[in-house]
Amino acid sequence: MTPANSPAPEAVVDLLGMLAYGELLAFDRMAHDARLAPDLRRRAVLSEMAAVEITNYRRLVARLAELGAEPEETMVPFVDSLHAYHDQTEPRDWWEALTKAYVGDGIADDFSREVAALLGERDRELVLQVLHDSHYNRFAAEEIRSAIGSDPKLANRLSMWARRLVGEGLSQAQRVAGERPALAALIVTGLDDRAGVQALLKRLTQAHATRMTAVGLNN
Amino acid sequence: MTPANSPAPEAVVDLLGMLAYGELLAFDRMAHDARLAPDLRRRAVLSEMAAVEITNYRRLVARLAELGAEPEETMVPFVDSLHAYHDQTEPRDWWEALTKAYVGDGIADDFSREVAALLGERDRELVLQVLHDSHYNRFAAEEIRSAIGSDPKLANRLSMWARRLVGEGLSQAQRVAGERPALAALIVTGLDDRAGVQALLKRLTQAHATRMTAVGLNN
Repeated sequence: MTPANSPAPEAVVDLLGMLAYGELLAFDRMAHDARLAPDLRRRAVLSEMAAVEITNYRRLVARLAELGAEPEETMVPFVDSLHAYHDQTEPRDWWEALTKAYVGDGIADDFSREVAALLGERDRELVLQVLHDSHYNRFAAEEIRSAIGSDPKLANRLSMWARRLVGEGLSQAQRVAGERPALAALIVTGLDDRAGVQALLKRLTQAHATRMTAVGLNN
Repeated sequence: MTPANSPAPEAVVDLLGMLAYGELLAFDRMAHDARLAPDLRRRAVLSEMAAVEITNYRRLVARLAELGAEPEETMVPFVDSLHAYHDQTEPRDWWEALTKAYVGDGIADDFSREVAALLGERDRELVLQVLHDSHYNRFAAEEIRSAIGSDPKLANRLSMWARRLVGEGLSQAQRVAGERPALAALIVTGLDDRAGVQALLKRLTQAHATRMTAVGLNN
């Protein structure tokens, strides 16, 4: 998939700003959620996952500065919606924290891969570089799978939790699309039309369903 | 300074376990304190400082495993005293958070350099590797210096705050020395005797005073 035209520079800046603030906030929340871990080893792994977000944040900010944007200004438009998402999905225990990381990172990475295809080479490579490490994804998946194995009730609770994560995420994504027309246009135009957006949402939803099934959760 | 005898293996494990838990908790607290930052740029820098602690944590844990120790067990003895230090020194604003990072990292690094000299080559190199990056130290120093320049009252408040940090740190260090005789012996024996420990404390205190003066705080 190659874009017919180069995306508008302000749309690229919007996208990178959104991803950057997403990383900064993911760092903050994961670092906090690590306190919920049942032992030091697990706590350290979630802390490491958080630390990676900061490395990615730096890469995005460096590129924003290179594009002549003031990184902080580019992030401000996304502060409210990203905070709203996290405030509405504050994990109550370790399993919710881990499921949030597993579900959220998975969808964010799928979305990033799709959007990367709409960008010029330089930004495409950057966006693909800041995808999450599959090593941590496997850690989260194994933890959830084994916890559900020994407590079937947990599967129900975490399945409901994951639906809430997706619902809140979609709700904030729609808000962003409404508030940032250039960014929305990048995606709509890149995917040719609104039917393309529907198809994108379908692909994201199916990949999410596959991830859920893989750890024993239902959609 | 070269140790006359190799330090006792259990003392080295104690030291590395203490440093490892110190890093993990510093990550947790700095990540949290980053929320106090007045803007996103500064918040990101403290978040980055936090993230470095996790990298160092991993190095220490890898070495502990290599030494045949169960990393988690080696950290447990230091949980209470390190938590007590942080609970007693919870910053109320950005300047207290930054001063805590500046003062705490400085003393921790000086201590690590001194203790590194008492270790075998492999562990000495590791302990020197996990020192804090001077880049962040300069950032904190410049921030404090410039804030004090525009608000002289802040200098008084932060000077008092730094005294409290040192007081709480010393108090918990004494507790650890009492509870972990092998670790205390490593330092006392390494420095030849108790007079050596007094001299060490004097060096740490003088270096701290120099750092305070450098940013416009008094001791």
